[in-house]
Amino acid sequence: MKPLPEHLRASIGLRVDLIETPAPVVDLDAMERNIQRMAEFARKHGVRWRPHAKLHKSADIALQLQQAGACGACVQTLAEAEALAAGGVHDIFLTNELLAASKLLRAASLAAQLAARGGRLALAVDSAEGVARLAEAMQVAGSSAGIDVFVEIDVGQGRCGLPPGPEAVALAQAITVQPRLRFAGLQAYHGRAQHLRSCAERRAAIAGATALAAQAHSLIEAAGLGLPLVTGSGTGTLVHEAASGVYGELQPGSFLFMDADYARNEREPAQPAFEQALFIKTQVISARETHVVCDAGHKSHAIDSGLPQVWGLAPERALGFANGGDEHGILTVRGSKARLPALGRMLWLVPGHCDPTVNLHDHLIGVRGGLAHGTVERIISVDARG
Amino acid sequence: MKPLPEHLRASIGLRVDLIETPAPVVDLDAMERNIQRMAEFARKHGVRWRPHAKLHKSADIALQLQQAGACGACVQTLAEAEALAAGGVHDIFLTNELLAASKLLRAASLAAQLAARGGRLALAVDSAEGVARLAEAMQVAGSSAGIDVFVEIDVGQGRCGLPPGPEAVALAQAITVQPRLRFAGLQAYHGRAQHLRSCAERRAAIAGATALAAQAHSLIEAAGLGLPLVTGSGTGTLVHEAASGVYGELQPGSFLFMDADYARNEREPAQPAFEQALFIKTQVISARETHVVCDAGHKSHAIDSGLPQVWGLAPERALGFANGGDEHGILTVRGSKARLPALGRMLWLVPGHCDPTVNLHDHLIGVRGGLAHGTVERIISVDARG
Repeated sequence: MKPLPEHLRASIGLRVDLIETPAPVVDLDAMERNIQRMAEFARKHGVRWRPHAKLHKSADIALQLQQAGACGACVQTLAEAEALAAGGVHDIFLTNELLAASKLLRAASLAAQLAARGGRLALAVDSAEGVARLAEAMQVAGSSAGIDVFVEIDVGQGRCGLPPGPEAVALAQAITVQPRLRFAGLQAYHGRAQHLRSCAERRAAIAGATALAAQAHSLIEAAGLGLPLVTGSGTGTLVHEAASGVYGELQPGSFLFMDADYARNEREPAQPAFEQALFIKTQVISARETHVVCDAGHKSHAIDSGLPQVWGLAPERALGFANGGDEHGILTVRGSKARLPALGRMLWLVPGHCDPTVNLHDHLIGVRGGLAHGTVERIISVDARG
Repeated sequence: MKPLPEHLRASIGLRVDLIETPAPVVDLDAMERNIQRMAEFARKHGVRWRPHAKLHKSADIALQLQQAGACGACVQTLAEAEALAAGGVHDIFLTNELLAASKLLRAASLAAQLAARGGRLALAVDSAEGVARLAEAMQVAGSSAGIDVFVEIDVGQGRCGLPPGPEAVALAQAITVQPRLRFAGLQAYHGRAQHLRSCAERRAAIAGATALAAQAHSLIEAAGLGLPLVTGSGTGTLVHEAASGVYGELQPGSFLFMDADYARNEREPAQPAFEQALFIKTQVISARETHVVCDAGHKSHAIDSGLPQVWGLAPERALGFANGGDEHGILTVRGSKARLPALGRMLWLVPGHCDPTVNLHDHLIGVRGGLAHGTVERIISVDARG
């Protein structure tokens, strides 16, 4: 848990209009409704959910999600796994490949720690080299606890992962012959499909991913390696993986906070109505006739999925947001009835992409009672930032 | 100063090939040559230099620059100013507008602290409202020390700053009538000109900026407000401001580390030969026939000025780098004789833009003796991150 700076500790109870800008603010009511919607969705579909902590990077939030029914947490880096474990999370799946000897030793040590608490660590692999190095690290660490290992297959993302054919089966076999490794299933995440705009495109992409995952599942079953868990999915496509009969576990992260990029997706009717819950509070610090400048630049919000949008304006009042560098955003009139906000005015931005936006901050400010009249209730530590 | 994590403390003396990835690594020899080049350049042109700490965000580096001849530090946020002051920097110019009452009170308190140490704080303003609010905060704080105030004028950037005409003069007059404010000069930075590709474009842009700054300077002089300092400039254009006879102080930041974006600029003959000094070390963690995946994504390097480049490859061996998300980069063959690097291979990336790349990290790893055979000598704390 990161130490809470004095000025943040003192901000508990502060009215929302007094929060200093630029600030990442979580609407706690909206976030908790999102958690309930996700929990109900998973219950209705009889599927496990293991939310991806690469979004929030907070042990407290991971524990809150588990209390709502999540079976554990996904992480994307070893440092995230260590930070969550230090904060009391016991069941962690690192959905990524490790190859460096020093990291594999740390993973082996973490696996032993989590096992001693009744939990477990799982890793993804996609190479025989990765399996051999992990087995060696587990032997050097000398723990009897073992580690769960998922074979990552590429179901359309085109990044890590093996083709879902004989190579995947061979890798699963290579895992099973290692005494300290347990073959746990298939990691089958199609990240690119999350951001396809139309329902039809996403449905088609996940139909393809599901067919590939089902094929790998059958081959592994036919090889006598059991019925592995297939895990994957994200906020944009979870209705499809949940209904597939192939995926037994969902890994959405963004549903908790949402972002401008997900808002651009055509809404799937069966999709839970996740709300925007993460905002950047900003102030107008300079005003000209043609534009005004606010104090939120790309140090406040990530721009890999586009620029933020100004929240709460009807289309005819819309303002354009242009990147003004690390510390500035440049606002211009866009809607037919839009007016430039006055010097000193506070505004709320919806970040383009929530995961890397959270990564820019050490703490998020949790507000209860809404953005207009709420107060600061809780400071969320971004334990696994960086 | 941020607490140094145990594993970083233990890494001092480590061979470069054992640094865990992804890692921001500073080639200290290259950085120190860049500092010497900048110091010589400023000496030769008889101009003060106040390097912008928005690049390095480190009090230790700011002090090292002062030892080499810099007259102080620029910062872009109040938090940066406070972090540098806490680390022993006494002469700080916040080249940006503050409007929030709570921040102006903090600035007033910091100004008093720095004055008590024989230093000073300076701020930029571009509105009468900003001057009035600052004067009020200084009065509430009750310090007798005063604060330096620069009028920011827009010399082509199109962001903050007043037009360099009568409005700027009026604002300078509004400052001089406030008992605790000292009118210190003109902030005249043309950020966009830094990244114009051709020498001719940059020369033309800074000729325009210089003419506007000279015009504001004359008007202020004619109004009997003295001969204010004109300050501004950046790594891309400093040869022009240094030779202008108008600018008395340069604010470059990026010269210290450089980046892929500056490398795309056509080189000005008079420009000091600044070298690349900041790198991201990364490892290949997944290999396919068509591509390999390394563990440096946009959590390791900022992408606002384009993607990173793989360092040290001749054009015919060049690899393409595609964004693979927060934690992954996807490498493909680009040059005619290029080969995909093997699983486990370590690579060095040059970030697209150094400032926001540094902001992603709590510490930079300083290496002595080069990237091939060097060792870790120093951990640089990014004191003012976030």
